[in-house]
Amino acid sequence: MFKVIDGGITAPKGFKAAGVHAGLKKMKKDMALIVSDVPAVTAAAFTTNKVKAAPVLWDISVLAGGEAQAVVVNSGNANACTGVKGLEDAKETAGYAASKLGLRQDKVYVSSTGVIGVPLDMAKIKGGIDELIPALSSDGADAADAILTTDTFRKEAAAVADIGGVAVTIAGMAKGSGMIHPNMATMLSYITTDAMIDQKTLQELLGNTVEDTFNMISVDGDTSTNDSVIVLANGLAGNVKITESYGYEAFEEAFRFVLGELAKDIVKDGEGAGRFIEMTVLNALTKKDAKVLARSVVSSSLVKAAFFGSDANWGRILCAMGYSGADFEPSLVDLSFSSPAGELLVVKGGEPVKFDEDKAKKILLEKEVKVMADCHQGTESATAWGCDLTYDYVKINGDYRS
Amino acid sequence: MFKVIDGGITAPKGFKAAGVHAGLKKMKKDMALIVSDVPAVTAAAFTTNKVKAAPVLWDISVLAGGEAQAVVVNSGNANACTGVKGLEDAKETAGYAASKLGLRQDKVYVSSTGVIGVPLDMAKIKGGIDELIPALSSDGADAADAILTTDTFRKEAAAVADIGGVAVTIAGMAKGSGMIHPNMATMLSYITTDAMIDQKTLQELLGNTVEDTFNMISVDGDTSTNDSVIVLANGLAGNVKITESYGYEAFEEAFRFVLGELAKDIVKDGEGAGRFIEMTVLNALTKKDAKVLARSVVSSSLVKAAFFGSDANWGRILCAMGYSGADFEPSLVDLSFSSPAGELLVVKGGEPVKFDEDKAKKILLEKEVKVMADCHQGTESATAWGCDLTYDYVKINGDYRS
Repeated sequence: MFKVIDGGITAPKGFKAAGVHAGLKKMKKDMALIVSDVPAVTAAAFTTNKVKAAPVLWDISVLAGGEAQAVVVNSGNANACTGVKGLEDAKETAGYAASKLGLRQDKVYVSSTGVIGVPLDMAKIKGGIDELIPALSSDGADAADAILTTDTFRKEAAAVADIGGVAVTIAGMAKGSGMIHPNMATMLSYITTDAMIDQKTLQELLGNTVEDTFNMISVDGDTSTNDSVIVLANGLAGNVKITESYGYEAFEEAFRFVLGELAKDIVKDGEGAGRFIEMTVLNALTKKDAKVLARSVVSSSLVKAAFFGSDANWGRILCAMGYSGADFEPSLVDLSFSSPAGELLVVKGGEPVKFDEDKAKKILLEKEVKVMADCHQGTESATAWGCDLTYDYVKINGDYRS
Repeated sequence: MFKVIDGGITAPKGFKAAGVHAGLKKMKKDMALIVSDVPAVTAAAFTTNKVKAAPVLWDISVLAGGEAQAVVVNSGNANACTGVKGLEDAKETAGYAASKLGLRQDKVYVSSTGVIGVPLDMAKIKGGIDELIPALSSDGADAADAILTTDTFRKEAAAVADIGGVAVTIAGMAKGSGMIHPNMATMLSYITTDAMIDQKTLQELLGNTVEDTFNMISVDGDTSTNDSVIVLANGLAGNVKITESYGYEAFEEAFRFVLGELAKDIVKDGEGAGRFIEMTVLNALTKKDAKVLARSVVSSSLVKAAFFGSDANWGRILCAMGYSGADFEPSLVDLSFSSPAGELLVVKGGEPVKFDEDKAKKILLEKEVKVMADCHQGTESATAWGCDLTYDYVKINGDYRS
């Protein structure tokens, strides 16, 4: 049981944020700052890409300390493929913000997204930090706007959990995979909470939750060099410290909700996406099989193109399950589509069921469509989220950089 | 050393073929037959998809016998997701053709591609076989046409190898991954040769060659339920039997050429493809790393969309290498583009090189573009082939089935 509330990263006690236009982008806000009033326990998850942007390398060293108090984000320049200079710039960004905030450098995370292969304009970055600090407030909206790139809407979520009678707030903001002029899709997310929580417990919880949320979405299957999820837990709620054996389930439920909402918003705002697809696999042999199957379906270009055409193309879904590498028995699978317009069984025991094509079309014309595959083999389930493949995706990503 | 010749699957001695319109498709030829005058040693490779179409299951049993003499193909109905009835139909197709040809049923392969989940119209299949047999001739063109679906051109290749002074011919035909009304992309290929060759040697050669040719192409990353490569070697050239220790290299070279040409033709004719991309990885640590890196690049939607836009987007290429899972050191990579319009180094030691954008655009506007990534770590290399992601791909695959 948790309560959903409005608001973003400043909803938990003791967090301030700001977003400004520092001149890295032409017009839009392009730098954000999050600061906790007190040192916070931290957890984070970063891109698995071998090519890691400089700020990610810096952040890995911050995470190793287990404690952080601020995050500086710029959404104009990814500071990726920038060599030794890039690493120095990331470190200098943290150092500059730290000195202005009266913090230690290794308590400041740095995130970047945007053009790659171009050195950071450190004068603009420092100017941005100078502007951000006086702009810090208890309104998280400017920060949530400032991390966006080609996103079409702000992504925030917040919830309150009850930990032994104490209200603990968890909130987050994210930017989705919008094509960045001129480069790659990046997913950034920041989670704040006033929970008092054990660092190890928080890191483990984040790992598990990312697996079920951010790692179960697919826009185009490309994993960026800058993907980051950063959590700060400052303990100001005054709860008894959450550990694996105290308050964990209640906290986890709300935490999972916040990350899940942000993940789904990213897919809904996927580049050129016109339709949101929720793929659930039921009764698989193992949790891993369920996940691999669900993810394979939402990642298939053929499936995505079929959804663009509102085509009840169950064959492509079975096919994508088939090549996923997961263990399942095709001849046992039931497949159905559903949406606000109704529900329809299309495959029973691996073979097609005669269905009303008009009804199928009606169901698939809705903005949000659910697909359910029942493997009838085990008890494990998983859900993945994706979007259709549209002309606009090709247009956005095919546009010449200049 | 081998000689490239014109012609298709009837180029080797002792092979006849035919292609007819049996009524599975509205207008176009939809059934093909290949027959060897004498029993042939056979090798084959099939889809790794868990969901295997009925004819693939039948063909696996034919392959187990090590010898075959005919192949019946239909390109109107995939006979996939058709349950027990589908298996019986595949077997009956082989049996009917065998009885009319005076062969044993288990010497006849059956291939299908087309609509899935719909039972085969066996009357049309049998009628087609009745028409195919009298139409058998030493011209392979009709057969090569009859296996096509949305392919825009016939795919044939042939070469002659010198095996101890004896001319041995290898030829092949293929259909590419065209969207089949209404379903999935399927790759079918048939290779004939008059070589006398040991069965085990042939199967091993096929496995290795498929790895470097058909398995190194990507149109959209979806592996169909029907993908098959079938080889018949009838021994009529009269060469001394090829084994691992006799004549292998000379045969392999020509064999690899034929499969490579067919594989590249499939990509060039990929759905909606406007541009052919050849991605070569040099000096990787292992052969596997080189392959995984090359394949990851040609499979990336972001990379493919960039090529659609003739965008020298080296960041996406490095990024796709980075998430491939292969071992390499990003800071050592050099990256260059080339085409008939010139050559351009864009990344040196993992960092961007200033380049002339106009020259880059000129290079990338060509129909065939090469990308070279030098890992500077080992000595292994690999090449993968792909195509751009276009509006037409989305259109073709988003079209409603009916």
